[in-house]
This record gives sequence, structure tokens and C-alpha cells, in this order.
Amino acid sequence: MKEKMGPLLSLYPSLVTIVGTTVRGKPNFTTIAHVGIMDMNSLSLSMNKAHYSNDGIKANKTFSVNIPSEYMVKATDYAGIVSGKDVDKSKLFKTFYGELKTAPMIEDCPLNMECRLMTVVDYPNHDLFIGDVVQTYANKEILVNGDIDFEKVRPMLFCMSNKSYHGMGLKVGDCWKIGKDYKK
Amino acid sequence: MKEKMGPLLSLYPSLVTIVGTTVRGKPNFTTIAHVGIMDMNSLSLSMNKAHYSNDGIKANKTFSVNIPSEYMVKATDYAGIVSGKDVDKSKLFKTFYGELKTAPMIEDCPLNMECRLMTVVDYPNHDLFIGDVVQTYANKEILVNGDIDFEKVRPMLFCMSNKSYHGMGLKVGDCWKIGKDYKK
Repeated sequence: MKEKMGPLLSLYPSLVTIVGTTVRGKPNFTTIAHVGIMDMNSLSLSMNKAHYSNDGIKANKTFSVNIPSEYMVKATDYAGIVSGKDVDKSKLFKTFYGELKTAPMIEDCPLNMECRLMTVVDYPNHDLFIGDVVQTYANKEILVNGDIDFEKVRPMLFCMSNKSYHGMGLKVGDCWKIGKDYKK
Repeated sequence: MKEKMGPLLSLYPSLVTIVGTTVRGKPNFTTIAHVGIMDMNSLSLSMNKAHYSNDGIKANKTFSVNIPSEYMVKATDYAGIVSGKDVDKSKLFKTFYGELKTAPMIEDCPLNMECRLMTVVDYPNHDLFIGDVVQTYANKEILVNGDIDFEKVRPMLFCMSNKSYHGMGLKVGDCWKIGKDYKK
């Protein structure tokens, strides 16, 4: 039995990231789970216009996307609760820089992408930032034969209506394999 | 210690969806995990240009996004392995229709969104379809006090480098709450 929910966007769970920017000369960090994959090398961030970080992305045309592990849940949530307008978050995390000098990345996050802004789409409530990944950094501990093992990343997922963060669960099957014989 | 991976898009895990379309008068279904949240009511699908479904979305300007549960992993994977060019997938799932008559939805998926196409962005390898949700359908069993409980949905997540599907894991904390006192 199906219940009509109205036009409710329900594309959850979505990946929890911490976005790094430079705003007025200082690093700033905010937690964003409304992300998207655009093309091989292109990603999107949907960021409410109220965020302090948006001006920094527009000014520098750079940002970083950092994937926090489960154990960082308190710091991650904190970065999403307090605004850079009110609180200096520049020292919230130990940071490092790559090729772009205005995209601070978070040392403790096992996975970091520094990105160059390509387009901003002006939605009613959100700035949609579309950027290209310039370089990706992975902790050695999450690599297996040179590839990222996301089980080792221990990423977090966000569910809007549950207002909760979840871990990644057990493997359900191999992609492009488990369904191979489904119709035979 | 950080390892440089090159410009590797690593925005995983990402949510596994089955996209429903009408192609040449028949329902077709394909599995897409490269999705994104754009605005309150707007979502994106990044679909390789090789997909049979793309023509149907462009022709009808509609599509559905269905969230399969873990137990559907074999059918979900199958829908992503075989192309509508080669195999008639119109009877792969029991379908229903809402307001849009060319956006077939999957009865067995606990969550369905029928969407109207707003824009197509022409990327080198992918068509990026951006659509607005017109109506959302939820199985009664996944609702708690009228809200979707994503723990009951039992969604699947895709990790590119692992080539695997995963379940959603245990709750790690409450959003906008667990980090409240982080800096005190």
C-alpha cells in the first residue's frame, strides 16, 4: 500500500562531507550532505544561501570536499551547527593544502578532494556549486592494492527525516555480478 | 600520511536507485547510483550516454526514481547489467503510475518519486538530468508518525572502487545535536 507524501525529495541516505573554504582570508568548514556526482570528475554541493562558506567559494573559485570517519561525528556535526559568521572555525581541524591555495583540507579525514569551481547554479534556496576535482588525497590506511576501500573509510550517511547519521553497513553483494544470473 | 590519487572523484558511498522511463512506448528500468540533491525539490541523475533510458527521458521529459531495499539486490544489479537495447525490461518489476503517464514506478521499492525533467546538462560522458519531484510514494510500512524512517527502507549504497553494494549501518548520532557541546 502506497502513501502519497507530496513532492518530497527523498534521496537519502546521502554522504556526509565537510566542505573547506577560505572566507575573508581564513579557513572555514561546514558540513554538507546534499552532494552529487555529475561526470567522471565533476561533483556538486547544494549549499543553503545562509551559509557563510558560499561567499568564499564564489570569491576564490575553489573548495575542498573532505570525507569524515564515524569517529569524527561530534566535530562533523559541530561544523554544521555553528556558522562561520559567529564562530571562528579556522582551527577546528588540523589542515593541509594541495595545489590550490584557498581550499584547506582536513588532515583527520581519510579522504580529501581539492576542487576548482566550474559553475554556480542559482536555485531559490541554495547555491549549487559544481566543481572539478583537481587532486584527491587518501590516507594510506584506507588503500588496498592502491584502491580506496570504503569499508576502511568508515563514512557517515545522513537521513533527513530521521535527523540522524548512520555508518555504512555490511556488504550486500558485488556490483555488476550478483544480478548476473537473475533472469536465468 | 596522505597518498596522491590524481583527480579521482571519490564521493562514495552513493545511494542506489532504479530509474524508470518510457522508451519507445515501453517501460524501461536502469540502476543509477550517481545521483545528487540540488534544491528542496530538485534532484539530478548522471547517466552515461550509452544508456538506453536517456532517449526516453529526453522524449517524454519525465522519469521516476525508485529506492530499492537490500533484499532486491539481485534484480537491482540485473537492471544495471543488461541494456534495454538488448533485453525487454518492461516486465522486470510490477509497476504503477502516478500523475505522469510516462514515469513507471516500481511497486516493490518502498520509496518512489515521479519527476519532471527540467534541464539536461551535456557532459562529455554523461547526460546530467535535473528534475523536479512531482509526487513521492512511500510504503506504509516505512512510515513512523507520517515520516519516512530510512532504517525501515533498508536502502543500498554503492562504492565504486569496492565494486560493491552495502546496506545502511547503525545510527552514529543525532544530527544537529550530537556535536552541540563539542567545543565546550
